[in-house]
Amino acid sequence: MNANFGADWLRDAGRESDVVITSRIRLARNFAGFPFVNRAEEEDRRQILDLARRDIIEGELASQMLWVDMNEIPQLERQVLVERHLISKQHSKGGSPRAAAISAPDERLSIMVNEEDHLRIQVLRGGLSLSEAFEQINEADDRIEARSDFAYSNRFGYLTACPTNVGTGIRISVMLHLPALKMTGEIEKVRRAAQRMSLAVRGYYGEGSEAVGDFFQISNQTTLGKSEHDLLEDFEANVIPKIVEYERRARRELLEKRRVILEDRVFRALGVLRHARLLKAEEALEKLSYVRLGCVTGVIEGTRVEDVNQLILLTQPAHMQRVLGRSLDQAERRVERATLVRAQLGGG
Amino acid sequence: MNANFGADWLRDAGRESDVVITSRIRLARNFAGFPFVNRAEEEDRRQILDLARRDIIEGELASQMLWVDMNEIPQLERQVLVERHLISKQHSKGGSPRAAAISAPDERLSIMVNEEDHLRIQVLRGGLSLSEAFEQINEADDRIEARSDFAYSNRFGYLTACPTNVGTGIRISVMLHLPALKMTGEIEKVRRAAQRMSLAVRGYYGEGSEAVGDFFQISNQTTLGKSEHDLLEDFEANVIPKIVEYERRARRELLEKRRVILEDRVFRALGVLRHARLLKAEEALEKLSYVRLGCVTGVIEGTRVEDVNQLILLTQPAHMQRVLGRSLDQAERRVERATLVRAQLGGG
Repeated sequence: MNANFGADWLRDAGRESDVVITSRIRLARNFAGFPFVNRAEEEDRRQILDLARRDIIEGELASQMLWVDMNEIPQLERQVLVERHLISKQHSKGGSPRAAAISAPDERLSIMVNEEDHLRIQVLRGGLSLSEAFEQINEADDRIEARSDFAYSNRFGYLTACPTNVGTGIRISVMLHLPALKMTGEIEKVRRAAQRMSLAVRGYYGEGSEAVGDFFQISNQTTLGKSEHDLLEDFEANVIPKIVEYERRARRELLEKRRVILEDRVFRALGVLRHARLLKAEEALEKLSYVRLGCVTGVIEGTRVEDVNQLILLTQPAHMQRVLGRSLDQAERRVERATLVRAQLGGG
Repeated sequence: MNANFGADWLRDAGRESDVVITSRIRLARNFAGFPFVNRAEEEDRRQILDLARRDIIEGELASQMLWVDMNEIPQLERQVLVERHLISKQHSKGGSPRAAAISAPDERLSIMVNEEDHLRIQVLRGGLSLSEAFEQINEADDRIEARSDFAYSNRFGYLTACPTNVGTGIRISVMLHLPALKMTGEIEKVRRAAQRMSLAVRGYYGEGSEAVGDFFQISNQTTLGKSEHDLLEDFEANVIPKIVEYERRARRELLEKRRVILEDRVFRALGVLRHARLLKAEEALEKLSYVRLGCVTGVIEGTRVEDVNQLILLTQPAHMQRVLGRSLDQAERRVERATLVRAQLGGG
C-alpha cells in the first residue's frame, strides 16, 4: 500500500469528478476443473490459490502485483483493504485459504482469490472512467485466461457461483456524490428510476449499507443476457451522465435560489470538523460530504477536494490506526480522528 | 437605553460571576386609595400613572430615570425591554395606560407601572449581588413611600393583587448558568432540592419557559410569613452558594475526568457559531451557553466571557433588529444573527 495512505483513484480525478467519485468494474471468474469455492475442499482451495498466484505473477498484469495471503496478515490490515474497496468484507474474514493480488503502488487492479468465485478481478479508478477500467480489466482477464481455462458454457457464458453473475460475470459500480439531490429530496426519483432499470443503489460501504454522507453506489444487478458492451455503453453514455446532470442542476438551483441554506449546511459541517474533539467515523463522512459539496460548488475556498477525498478514506477506523501506527480502541479513534481532521482542515 | 446595547449588569461581573449571571429583586407595591390594576377603570389607571411618574421623578431615584409610556413606543422597543429583563412580557402587550421607568444609562433600576400591581420595582445586577440590589431597591421604595402611601395591612403587610406576593411583596430571582450540572445530569437534584425549599426554577425567558442554554432562574415563590432579611440571607448565604459550589464541582470533575468530552462540547458549539450562516435565537443561546462554559473553565482562550454575555443579549430577536436599525423578518434575522455572531467570535 502507498506510504502516503492515498489510493491513486483518489488523485486521478477522472471525468465528472465533481459528482463521480469512482468507477469500478469487476469480473467473476472460475478456473475450469475445480468446484466452486463454497463446494471446494481445503485442498482444492489451496490449489486454486497456487494456480491464481502463478497466473497473476507470470501474466505480468501490472508492473508490480502484491500478493497478500489473507491468513498471514493481521485483521487490521485486512480491514484497511476493505476500507480501500480492494477486498470485500466477507473476504476479510479469513479462515480458509484466500488471498488478494493488488497492483502497486496504484492499487487500481485487485484480484480476490477464493472469495465467492475463484477470482474476482476488479479495476477501480477515479471519476467516470469505465472505458479505461474496462480496457484494463479486459487485459488482465485475457492474460490470466491465456494461462488457464475458465469455467465457461457456450450457452450461458462464464459460469459463476451465484447465478446472478453468470454470463459476462461483470459488475459495474459507480460511486456518486449526490448531496444536492439529497437536500432537495429528488434523490428518491433517482432511486426509483434506478430500480426501474434493474440497477442496485447502495451506500458508501456497499452491500446492505445505508447512504451515509450522500454517497451512492449504482451498479447492475444481473449480467445474463446483456453484452458487456451494452452494459458499459448504458452506464457511461446514459445512466451516469443523466444522474450527473441531475445532481449538477440541483447544485445550480441551490446556489441560485437557496444559497444561504447551502452555505449554512456546508459551513456548519466545516465548523464542526474544524473544532470537534471527538468524531465518529459516520459523522466524519457525513460532514466531509458537505465540505466536498462546498469545495466543488466554490462555496468553500482554500480547501482542496482531493484533501477532502483523502480524509474520507483516512478517517475510517482501520485507516486511523494505520496512520497512527498502533491499535486504538473506539474512544481513542474518536479523539485521533478529530485531531487529524482539525489538522487537515485548519481547525482551532 | 445604552447606545452600545449592553446593559450594565452584563459588565459589572459581581461575585461568583462564573456561575451567577444576574441577581434580581423586585417589590410589588400598590398605592393606597386605588383599586388593584385588574379592577381599576381606565381613569384610575391614568391617575396611578401620573402619581407614579411624579413620585419617581421627584423622588430622584437615580441620577436619570427614563419614563417610557408603553403605548407611545413601538412593539419592537417594548420587545427590547422584555429581552433586557426590564419589563415583563405581559407588560409589553400595551393597551391600557401603563409605563416603565428605567434608570439610565445603567438600567439597574426599573419600575413597571400598572402591570399586575401599581408598581413593580426591580433592581437587576450582575453576579451574586443581592445585598447591593436590596439596598438599592429599599432606597427606591422608601423614596416613593415618602411621597405616597402604599396599600398596607398591619396584619399581612403590603397588599398585592396576587396573594402569593402579599407581605413583603418581595421576589428574589437569581439567574444561574449550570451547564456542568446539566451535562452530568445532576441538575435534577438541584431542581428537586429547590422544590423542597419552595423555590421556583424557571428558564432563561422566565415564567413558563424551559431552560434553554442551561440558564436557570431560581426564585422564591411565596412572600408571606418570611421577613425580607430572612429570604435574602437564605438566598445569599445558603441556597445560591450551595448551587454555585455544586456547579463548580461538576465543572472540576468534567475538567479532570471527562475533559475531552467537555472540550468537544464546547468547541463544537464554538465551531458552529463561527461558521453558521443561519442561526435561530434558541440555538444561539444554547451554543453560547457552551462557549461561556468554555471561557469560564479556561478551555477556550482568547474569547472574553463579557463578549459572550453580550452576544446572549444581542442575538435575541428584538435586539437583532435594534442593532441593525431596521425591522427584519424571521429569515432575515437568522442570517443577520449568524453574521453578527461570526463577526464577534472571529469566524470564517
